[in-house]
This record gives sequence, C-alpha cells and structure tokens, in this order.
Amino acid sequence: MYKLSSIKEFRELMRFLPEPDVETEILAQYRQEQLTKPPGSLGRLESLAIWLSAWQVRERPRLDKVQTLVFAGNHGITAQNISAYPADVTAQMVENFEHGGAAINQLCKLAGADLDVIALELDRPTRDFTSAAAMDEAEFLAGLNAGLTAVDTTADCLIVGEMGIGNTTVAAALCYGLFGGEAEDWIGRGTGVDDDGLKRKAEVLKRAREFHLKTLDCPLEVLRCLGGRELAAIAGAVLAARQARIPVILDGFISTAAVCPLEVLTPGALDHCVAGHRSSEPGHDRVLKRINKNPLLDLNMHLGEGSGAAVAALVLKAAIAAHNGMATFAEAGVSGKA
Amino acid sequence: MYKLSSIKEFRELMRFLPEPDVETEILAQYRQEQLTKPPGSLGRLESLAIWLSAWQVRERPRLDKVQTLVFAGNHGITAQNISAYPADVTAQMVENFEHGGAAINQLCKLAGADLDVIALELDRPTRDFTSAAAMDEAEFLAGLNAGLTAVDTTADCLIVGEMGIGNTTVAAALCYGLFGGEAEDWIGRGTGVDDDGLKRKAEVLKRAREFHLKTLDCPLEVLRCLGGRELAAIAGAVLAARQARIPVILDGFISTAAVCPLEVLTPGALDHCVAGHRSSEPGHDRVLKRINKNPLLDLNMHLGEGSGAAVAALVLKAAIAAHNGMATFAEAGVSGKA
Repeated sequence: MYKLSSIKEFRELMRFLPEPDVETEILAQYRQEQLTKPPGSLGRLESLAIWLSAWQVRERPRLDKVQTLVFAGNHGITAQNISAYPADVTAQMVENFEHGGAAINQLCKLAGADLDVIALELDRPTRDFTSAAAMDEAEFLAGLNAGLTAVDTTADCLIVGEMGIGNTTVAAALCYGLFGGEAEDWIGRGTGVDDDGLKRKAEVLKRAREFHLKTLDCPLEVLRCLGGRELAAIAGAVLAARQARIPVILDGFISTAAVCPLEVLTPGALDHCVAGHRSSEPGHDRVLKRINKNPLLDLNMHLGEGSGAAVAALVLKAAIAAHNGMATFAEAGVSGKA
Repeated sequence: MYKLSSIKEFRELMRFLPEPDVETEILAQYRQEQLTKPPGSLGRLESLAIWLSAWQVRERPRLDKVQTLVFAGNHGITAQNISAYPADVTAQMVENFEHGGAAINQLCKLAGADLDVIALELDRPTRDFTSAAAMDEAEFLAGLNAGLTAVDTTADCLIVGEMGIGNTTVAAALCYGLFGGEAEDWIGRGTGVDDDGLKRKAEVLKRAREFHLKTLDCPLEVLRCLGGRELAAIAGAVLAARQARIPVILDGFISTAAVCPLEVLTPGALDHCVAGHRSSEPGHDRVLKRINKNPLLDLNMHLGEGSGAAVAALVLKAAIAAHNGMATFAEAGVSGKA
C-alpha cells in the first residue's frame, strides 16, 4: 500500500473501511448447511470458513498465500530495568529470524506462510515514555508507514507479529492509557521478570500514565506516546489489510494491544481480525475482552514473533479444508435429519 | 497387533503397560531449555514436544506417519428414538468416508494422516441396552480385536474416531454407568435432538443403569453391556497403541468415553493419550475432568469421526516443528537472561 504523508491521512483512511461481502457470506453459509455433517457440528471451523469467505469475497476461500510480518523495535523504557533480557537481544533475534532459527521460522514453514522481518531503527530506541513521548510525529508516521507499505495486498491472509525487548511493558502502558483500570491488571512477567521486576513495571505504568494524562482521550496519540515503532507498524499493517479486505490473525498481547487504538477510534475497525490465541501474559485476556475477541487457541504461549497466530493459521486451514472439500448431502447420497 | 482369544487376555495386557522413556524425556527437556526463546514461552507446545519425545523414545520426535482409525457401528438403542438421524446414516457416512467426501477426509489430508475406516457389522446393531447387554462376550471380544489388530505399530501417532448413529447416547450411558452422577449430566443434543429427545435420552440412561446395576463395578463389563462395537474397538486400538508406545490423540465425547474403562481399570493407562479437543457435547468436558485431561482445542466442534483430533494433530506438528527446527542460544549467538 502507498505511504501516507501525515497522521491526518491515516485518520482519513480509518473513516472508509471496506466491509465483508454479505452476498458471499450468504453463499458460504448456504454451502455449510449442505455439507455432510449435522448443522453446526464443526463449530468454529464453520464460522471461520464463512468469515474468510466474506472477507475474501470467495465462496470457497483460500489460504495459499499467507504473509507473516514481524516488526522489531527497541524501547527507551528498558532503561527502567523492566525486562529479563538485555536490549541487544532484539537485534540478535532479528538475525536469528533471518537465519531461520527462531520459532516463527519453523511455524511459518509448517503453515506454508511467507515470513518478512522488518527491523525498525533498532539503533534508535524510542524515548523513555515516563518522561517523554515515545515517538515524535515523524517517527510515529514512519512506524505506521512501515506497516502500511509492508503488506502484500495479494495475500490471502496476514499474520502480524513483533520482537522488541521491553515491549510487554509498552503494551501494558498502552492498554493502561487506553482502557484505564489498575496498572497491576495490565502487567505480567513478559519474558520472565521476577517479583521486583513486576513492581517496577507497575510503577513505570503509573508514572507514564500520569505524564501523558492529557493525550489519553486520543487513541492514536496514546499509540504515539506510549507505543513503539513495531506497535505503530502493526497498526499500519492491520489498516492496510483492511483496505485490501485481507483477513488478519492477531498474535499475542503486544500485537493485540497495538491495534486497540484502531478499534477505540472506529468501532468495528478490527472486524477483519481474528485473535489467534490467548497468551498467558495476563493483560492479553483482559484486552481481548475489551475488543470482544474470542481467541482460537489457548496453549499458554507467550513468545510473540507471531508464533501463536502462525499455529492458529493451521486452524483456519482446517476450516477451509472442510468447507471447500467436503461433499454435500446430495452429492454423497446421505440422508438428512429424521 | 495380534488377536486376543479372550477378554481375560485383554486384562492381562492391561497389567503390563510400557512407560514413556525417562532418559529421552530429560534430553528433550534439556533441548527445549537451549532453544532461542524465553523458557516456557511456547507453553503447551513445549510440553507436547517433550511428551512425544518420551513416548517415541526420540529426542526429536516426528509425526511423519499419523494413522487415523475411524470405527463405525450401529446401536440397538436407536429403537428408543434418541437420535436426530436414521440409523441408515451410519452406512451412508462410511460410504462417504470411502469416497473422500467427509470432514475427516479433508482434515486427514491437511494433517498428512492416513485414514482407515473400519465398519463393524453395521447390519447387526448391538442390542438395546435398556433390556439386554449391548454385546455378548464374543461380540465384545471381536470389537476389542477389531481395534487391537487395526493399529499400524510403525505409526508415529494414532488418532481414534468413530461414526455411529445413536452413539452419543451410548457414550453417555457408559459414563453414567462408570462414573455415576445424574443421568442429565451426561447427555446432550448429539447430532441435534430436540428437548423431547433429551428427555428420552435421560430416561434411557436411567433404565439402562438400573438394568445393569450389578456389572457397574467392573469397567470392562460396563463397556460390554453399555458400549458398542466401535467403542470397544477404540479401547482395543488405544491399548495396542500403548503396547507399541504410540502416542494417541483422542477425539470427542464418544472416543473419550470409550477409553475411560481402561483408566478406571488401571490408572495411568491413558498416559500416552492427549485430548485433542473439548467437544460442545456437555458430557465431554465432564469426562475429560474425570480422567484429568486438558484438551488442546476448544472450538465448539461435536462431529466425531476423529475430526477434532485431526485438527489437534496440527498443533502437535507445530510443537515438533519448533522443537526440532529451532536454533539454540549458542548456535544463534543470542544472549540469555540478563
């Protein structure tokens, strides 16, 4: 997708969101009713197939071309000692992605997904948001554009993932800014901080919220001030996918938090997104409830990288396999209900 | 596996159950700790990979050869009008499996699994268990043997599924016989009975339990008197898999109920089994809790045929892909915890 020249343009795009195709949805629903199984017996596999049909505008949807985008960023907030790993690990993991050694590489291979890893100025961390906006407007726009322009608009499905030491704290700050509640509700152990680390995280969140109090009623400002480059890129990519009617699989806490500003700004903006899984990072369940998403998987994963979404892509493939390949009652000569 | 000549031989086999290999388990656990991710961050994918390793006695397990066994049977209890579909549908669906038109065909293809469908004397339904034992000893033994001999002992993993009009009522009667509680706790809508159908199911369960009260303290007798041919075959197949140390993915309510007699007879007999999913048939959740199994998926499926287990096989594949393919911290030059 094209590059935006201002955040105002992003807001404009948010006002014209393509909707799923109702006619195709009805055709796909009708097809489901004819297949050789009791109605509803494939549960979410049925609704997922219909949902994919409607967004792809294909009675028989496909997942031949799945794009996984992993955005990486570094965060000034790591100065507050809120991660179990040093910030260098972000760049080291990007290298690991490029050499094919990370979890997301194996899971993408299994799901037949293409993996694009986009490192966002790793040597220029965002500012520590307890005392400044994480990004200025130009940096924020660059982050959004990194996502908007990375989406392959010919893909059948998009997976969004991230890597960034410290970014569970960023996601927590974003959610606390956007949704309020108690700071403690939004934090968890991330990659493995101890009890003191948890306390520091809560403290950081409170100071950050206090500092940015005036911006909290503007969702995109919350993303700019309390977010990070990779989170901005995810928001941009998810908007680009919507513009191209590409269904999206969200990953864990960070990728879900990153797109919440879109939903708060324009309710329904995430209708083309499914939650791939529920992470064991406690804020994730809370934020999924805020945006009314029921995750496909619940496997205690909390890695990021798009890993949970990549496993969820296999469930979408199962949905499509049944929807496209099964015989109808008439074709198979099977009797309907007595 | 070989054919048994008596039910006593089955009991003998149950006394000598191979255990997972502890040494391989330790090696697999060690490997998980070296991989480029925070410890535990792949959640159940980690424990699944280690579990597969220990049973397969391979530090790097594989799922190249997955066997799906679908057993089909007919049930005298359908005379009590407890199913939404006529009994003819069992044979029609077997034909559908053979022509590749059912859900399980598509899901096996996706998972790279071989599908073997075994119809068990469909023209000779079991007896109506409200007034007789479902099977005599010879019929029960034949059912167990059908399962025991069907298992490919060179497979990396076994999926067990079933087809049989009326068999959610059979599974409910089996669970009510084995575990007690209220009859109403074990019943659900199956393929779609109405409220009157639900009442008839509960009534049938009460009469069946009353009639077979004397046999309820003997788990295999419960399976013979309140089960069905396809349920006996599943129990036989799962025992054969245990003897060959093949990990098993259980499907829904019926396949889970079928193997409960093994666990009640010998606690730990199902340690080589994982619950593929939680069916929306209400008895399934209840019975999973009885045998202490936490299902991998929860997608509101309730089709049977092995369909939920086949989707779960994809999750096991994801576990193995990460376990076998990821780089270690040393290989990737990534720093460990700070």
